[in-house]
Amino acid sequence: MHVAAQIVEQIVDPSDVGEGFAQVERGFELLGLFVFALSGALLAVRKGFEVVGVTSLALVTALGGGVLRDLALGDTPPIAFRDVWYLVVPLIAAAIVFVAYDVIDRHLHRSVLVFDAIGLGLFAVTGAIKSEAYGTTAVGAVVLAVVTATGGGILRDVLANDPPQLFQPDSRLYAIPAAAGATVIIVLLRNSVYSAVLAGLVAGGVCFARLAALRWGWRAPMPRPARPRS
Amino acid sequence: MHVAAQIVEQIVDPSDVGEGFAQVERGFELLGLFVFALSGALLAVRKGFEVVGVTSLALVTALGGGVLRDLALGDTPPIAFRDVWYLVVPLIAAAIVFVAYDVIDRHLHRSVLVFDAIGLGLFAVTGAIKSEAYGTTAVGAVVLAVVTATGGGILRDVLANDPPQLFQPDSRLYAIPAAAGATVIIVLLRNSVYSAVLAGLVAGGVCFARLAALRWGWRAPMPRPARPRS
Amino acid sequence: MHVAAQIVEQIVDPSDVGEGFAQVERGFELLGLFVFALSGALLAVRKGFEVVGVTSLALVTALGGGVLRDLALGDTPPIAFRDVWYLVVPLIAAAIVFVAYDVIDRHLHRSVLVFDAIGLGLFAVTGAIKSEAYGTTAVGAVVLAVVTATGGGILRDVLANDPPQLFQPDSRLYAIPAAAGATVIIVLLRNSVYSAVLAGLVAGGVCFARLAALRWGWRAPMPRPARPRS
Repeated sequence: MHVAAQIVEQIVDPSDVGEGFAQVERGFELLGLFVFALSGALLAVRKGFEVVGVTSLALVTALGGGVLRDLALGDTPPIAFRDVWYLVVPLIAAAIVFVAYDVIDRHLHRSVLVFDAIGLGLFAVTGAIKSEAYGTTAVGAVVLAVVTATGGGILRDVLANDPPQLFQPDSRLYAIPAAAGATVIIVLLRNSVYSAVLAGLVAGGVCFARLAALRWGWRAPMPRPARPRS
Repeated sequence: MHVAAQIVEQIVDPSDVGEGFAQVERGFELLGLFVFALSGALLAVRKGFEVVGVTSLALVTALGGGVLRDLALGDTPPIAFRDVWYLVVPLIAAAIVFVAYDVIDRHLHRSVLVFDAIGLGLFAVTGAIKSEAYGTTAVGAVVLAVVTATGGGILRDVLANDPPQLFQPDSRLYAIPAAAGATVIIVLLRNSVYSAVLAGLVAGGVCFARLAALRWGWRAPMPRPARPRS
Repeated sequence: MHVAAQIVEQIVDPSDVGEGFAQVERGFELLGLFVFALSGALLAVRKGFEVVGVTSLALVTALGGGVLRDLALGDTPPIAFRDVWYLVVPLIAAAIVFVAYDVIDRHLHRSVLVFDAIGLGLFAVTGAIKSEAYGTTAVGAVVLAVVTATGGGILRDVLANDPPQLFQPDSRLYAIPAAAGATVIIVLLRNSVYSAVLAGLVAGGVCFARLAALRWGWRAPMPRPARPRS
């Protein structure tokens, strides 16, 4: 727990660390927020929502997972309301989609998926570390890590009145790599072999697994009745 | 922050202030809860829900925004569970709709819209003040003010399995006046020129902007693809 | 309040009590979580969700109500993230449904309804006691007790993009017995005549009322417009 608490201190107040790892990590996290916000805003435009809907879906998709995690851990107000960039970055993403929907949807579709996978890996890792620092069980930390990484997308679909993409049989692996990565992080932390480099490798592994699932069409297993029977 | 904290103290425990401004404000807030509850209960009846659905939608619509704000700020249990009138007033509204749906839907439709606009203005102002007092960023306070004013309506639509009205292109300005009013309040507070009279004027302005949007059909801007192209 | 606080201490940390009442109660609560998780997982299978959807709906249905209650009371992280069995038991239920959907859906449908009614009674009682201990109003405690008992099912339906079963006119009494039972518990606590035996009787009464409503088709009252007119 001690290791996790130290790491979280760096995440929560990265100004102390100067130009170190935490700043890099915060940069990646803001990048993750940016692409999550893009995906929310794009869905809102496709749904025919106006500017309030586009902004709301961008904010909810980007921040929903982290806010849910912070509420569950009792870290209030959530970081999204204390660090101004956590709101400004998604708002910029919403504004870009609002004025340049066509360009993004046509030409950057593939890039958005790549950045989304990066966000998935990073949020799974930071969610696991922060939950561990707040004294949850190991299983609880994995669940909250998955919530951090996927909660925004689920809230986006609920607000858009869609069934969550995450649960659909034609979706590719998304929550499963996040859960696996979070499990590795918890094992590392509890055995005191955690390091920033290893965390980066785990985040990269989650990201790679997601991209590989997209590339080669890996799907999550279905319950038995959905399989063809003789 | 100091000014906001003092004001919040009056909101949270208005009994200290005697017959002063806070009591008037609490009266308006309960009035806002009443009409928000009416709108939730009316939707539940139109959806064919029974008594549990009518009561639940009335409570969620009236209290959802404030409860979400209080959870985000870490002010638990939320005021809705500490001040009994915050639950009793919406329950009365639900009971009235339950027995007299026809009368309210036919004859009071316009009045409900007016009171709803009053609630919008008041909740935007009180949401901004309270968030500022709890140390959020300025942008965070504006977002939480909008959540306070509109969150109940969004939860109402989610529970009724409707796409949120707030995001629809044919809706009239609602969240935008709330955000603008909250921004003015934050600017006033951070420059120490806040006063109860100014807060009242801002709430009135939000209310008026909403009613004007309804009267003259003002709409929020749509993203580019929805506009006709040559 | 004092009585409620003592009882909650036993619920929150049952290890202190040895083999006493709290252990029995925790056993029943875990049983309630198990059947709530079954109902979530069964719905997910019917909706055609894959393994992530089945697991998510099982967890949300089982734990959603209690997590919402704990967040509202400021008891963070919620018990679900501190006591590992609260996550393990629903995960087991999800795994069972995943591999043996047919058997459960065909042969155990009736048993699931009975256990669900037991969970309803237990969660209504424990929700009321815990809310009272955290200083909510009496009405607030009843509302939070109903949220504890029914919130997971509502979240399950929202995530599955269904209108909540709870609000449908063809549903049988569910929230109403829970609210009635919670009211009795609060009256007992506030008059210092609460005892574990009485609490068990109230939970049994809620459970029985639910089963009777299913058996004899009792429905909640509808608002006026739904009745036939002359």
